[in-house]
Amino acid sequence: MLILKVKILDIDLENFILINKEDLKSSQYFPGDRVIVKYRDKESVGVIYSSKSLVNRGEVGINIEMAKELKIKDGEIVYITHAERPKSITHIKKKMDGNKLKKEEIYDIVDEMVEGKLGNIEITAFVTSIYINSMDMDEIEALTIRMAETGEKIDWDSLVVDVHSIGGVPGNKYALITVPIVASLGLKIPKTSSRAITSAAGTADIVEVLTKVDLSPEEIKKVVKETNGCLVWGGAINLAPADDITITVERPLNIDPKPLLLSSVMAKKLAMGIKKLVIDIPVGNEVKVKNLKEGSSLARDFISLGERLKIYTECALTYGNQPIGRAIGPALEAREALEALEGKKVPDSLIEKSTGLAGILLEIGGVAPFGEGKELAENILKTGKAHKKFMEIIVAQGGKEISSEEIEVGKYFADITAPFDGYVTKISNRGITKIAKEAGAPNDKKAGVYLNVKVGNKVEKGDVLYTIYSNSQERLKNALKVARLLYPVRIENVLLKRISRF
Amino acid sequence: MLILKVKILDIDLENFILINKEDLKSSQYFPGDRVIVKYRDKESVGVIYSSKSLVNRGEVGINIEMAKELKIKDGEIVYITHAERPKSITHIKKKMDGNKLKKEEIYDIVDEMVEGKLGNIEITAFVTSIYINSMDMDEIEALTIRMAETGEKIDWDSLVVDVHSIGGVPGNKYALITVPIVASLGLKIPKTSSRAITSAAGTADIVEVLTKVDLSPEEIKKVVKETNGCLVWGGAINLAPADDITITVERPLNIDPKPLLLSSVMAKKLAMGIKKLVIDIPVGNEVKVKNLKEGSSLARDFISLGERLKIYTECALTYGNQPIGRAIGPALEAREALEALEGKKVPDSLIEKSTGLAGILLEIGGVAPFGEGKELAENILKTGKAHKKFMEIIVAQGGKEISSEEIEVGKYFADITAPFDGYVTKISNRGITKIAKEAGAPNDKKAGVYLNVKVGNKVEKGDVLYTIYSNSQERLKNALKVARLLYPVRIENVLLKRISRF
Repeated sequence: MLILKVKILDIDLENFILINKEDLKSSQYFPGDRVIVKYRDKESVGVIYSSKSLVNRGEVGINIEMAKELKIKDGEIVYITHAERPKSITHIKKKMDGNKLKKEEIYDIVDEMVEGKLGNIEITAFVTSIYINSMDMDEIEALTIRMAETGEKIDWDSLVVDVHSIGGVPGNKYALITVPIVASLGLKIPKTSSRAITSAAGTADIVEVLTKVDLSPEEIKKVVKETNGCLVWGGAINLAPADDITITVERPLNIDPKPLLLSSVMAKKLAMGIKKLVIDIPVGNEVKVKNLKEGSSLARDFISLGERLKIYTECALTYGNQPIGRAIGPALEAREALEALEGKKVPDSLIEKSTGLAGILLEIGGVAPFGEGKELAENILKTGKAHKKFMEIIVAQGGKEISSEEIEVGKYFADITAPFDGYVTKISNRGITKIAKEAGAPNDKKAGVYLNVKVGNKVEKGDVLYTIYSNSQERLKNALKVARLLYPVRIENVLLKRISRF
Repeated sequence: MLILKVKILDIDLENFILINKEDLKSSQYFPGDRVIVKYRDKESVGVIYSSKSLVNRGEVGINIEMAKELKIKDGEIVYITHAERPKSITHIKKKMDGNKLKKEEIYDIVDEMVEGKLGNIEITAFVTSIYINSMDMDEIEALTIRMAETGEKIDWDSLVVDVHSIGGVPGNKYALITVPIVASLGLKIPKTSSRAITSAAGTADIVEVLTKVDLSPEEIKKVVKETNGCLVWGGAINLAPADDITITVERPLNIDPKPLLLSSVMAKKLAMGIKKLVIDIPVGNEVKVKNLKEGSSLARDFISLGERLKIYTECALTYGNQPIGRAIGPALEAREALEALEGKKVPDSLIEKSTGLAGILLEIGGVAPFGEGKELAENILKTGKAHKKFMEIIVAQGGKEISSEEIEVGKYFADITAPFDGYVTKISNRGITKIAKEAGAPNDKKAGVYLNVKVGNKVEKGDVLYTIYSNSQERLKNALKVARLLYPVRIENVLLKRISRF
């Protein structure tokens, strides 16, 4: 056991235990060892690193987060002992060997992940073996339930509904329109969403242009009580933290194994106390789900997992072959969503999708008869009721009423024009996302892409295809380079081949 | 691009790029991003961490290692840009999907691993998918060749032989006897070995009790030129560094996939320029290879891989059901090996194994006719020639001549005695290793276990079964606790049941 004096270091490396090299030398502890730090009745798990100068002999450096967890101040004494070998290593190996895991084994894995007892190596081995050997519905159910149980949970005293898109299609700002439509008809819809993971703007990034999104559970309950809806960032309330942990290893590998896709969505909904749910599954060449067959199979899995969790679930397969609407990037998307709510002209695709999803929610929520939800939703949007409700929600979340014209977008911009006459045959989701990100989205909220055309439009040489916005001239220049390289809006001449007389 | 002033920080976290939180906020760079640090014509890859206080705005903290690599001093200016997404992610995913990798793809993975472009997440995904989906001999060959090519390589102007044990059995100090036997007969044997990974003493730890083991390639060549042999630590000369990288993720998962076991051993031998090789494969309940069938299959793989690499390879399956000899722990093992060389009484098992392996080397090296190697080896040992050669080697490596009696072992010790009369039916490799490690081995070189009995011995109640040594009273106490818990030397009464007259 090591007995050391705490020195709090401000560094964002997680679970970091910094010990003087000389102290380590004369001990049974080595860099890389997983240890338990004890202070009074609290303990925390960390990994040893060594230094000759950042900490003196007899000191241990920990980060601010761990200090908060332990409720400890600089100079106080902690006891450090070896952490036991995590129980779940054996279970992870069982999955690596292609076996089905028991409920208790999955619970161990989730628990140890959340307690910080597993590092990136163990978690990656788990995720990789799920990718390769998959999981059956019993395993997925256990994973989902434990993910929800090991984080914040919110209870409601009446029915709450929600809508969730599995993502992949840029410009997908439907929630800003769907949520107020549903809420304005008296259904409770406490919508949580994420920030961009690989996209140019997550729903939370878009809403943040207009109001506060990092609300506490108490604040969320208050906003929903007042307005029936909210649009908040799920990351602020520690919902199903194990899901966020697995995502950190899925992202660099660019994988999203089905069992984790299912548990990730459903664990957060379970934790939020959602009882009826609509899942939007975009289908297209450059999104997660490539065709209707794949989409239907995923939909059936969501519905069957929902049944096990007592969340009534329906799925909507939606068109995902080009961006939704014209705007991509937080401020541009917030503006377009507001325009739609204000009754201004926006692409039909955005209105169709938003009211279509709202319609299903209204039907399963018992507000509209079967087959009449969408029309009701369209009416609510047209009459301005949805706009009024949206303003209530953003004010309740701490923002101010705002009109689409007041929203600022990047002060630097550049147009991309058609190189010849023709028709728009393809708009690449990936290409547009890359350009928007290169321009600075989602961090630079004013950066992004505005499409002047959509697939099928006729263009003449020199017509503006799209405009790139950025708050930085240098980033705009980089985005232009990427745009020239990727050529994401494809124009084709109708006259394919000319055959001359001779 | 970020332009920052270097601040060298003494912390052993690899590839660490510490940037002030405020500088990151106004940039396109985030904690966790993999970036390239450029200084003049040099560059290095690292991962961003953030801090508010350890570095000021405009500064970047890097560790001493990276500073050395870049040849940079405090206060100099570096350029930081995003590292491209590693090429090998796609290849790793291909292996995850169960496909065979091309030579070029394996080369990419090894290269990026060695260049620091892959983190633990990517490397674990690779290792896990090899564990699950395995590799064929073409893939293993490519992996082995590239692992060898990306590190230090040593060439020789005449035949060099080597012997390697895949490990798992405690007390396996055979190399200290085998190497001098072989070298004294004129065969060149530049033996590299590892420190303990999970055992109580690696060959390098044992030899270090007697002489220096961290020799440079030039020093190794000089020692081998003078004496025909050496016993050095492979870790000092950057042989097949990709192997060490994969081991860091294999260890916490407690896996050793066959393709990596094969490539790990053979890459290091290829890099050392070995032309003829004997592999010791211990077989037993508590070692890597459980039975002769498994051992034969592994042996065939080693031989076949050896053919492809132009290393003539033979394998010896050896008895691994109990420790080799009586001593476990660096100093205790060094003493026992010296006793064997000095002609003192040591267990037959140690002499058998050391001379058996030496015999095969002498035969394949052309020094002894087929079937006569072992007898020649035994003679060399008996006549003291091996002892003389061993002294030459340790002196050439920078040590002094020493006798077994001069070797100090732990000043604190405790005897474990037989609880009743009976026969020793089992000695647990794992149990003995755990006790020796708890007592402080291999870090405390004088710690370990000395077995007074071996399997089959008759004991009476109160006879000493084994003695635990340590240089720390506290650790000895802990080791005793573990000993009582594990009961690694099993005694059984011959009289199993007494039936009385009535």
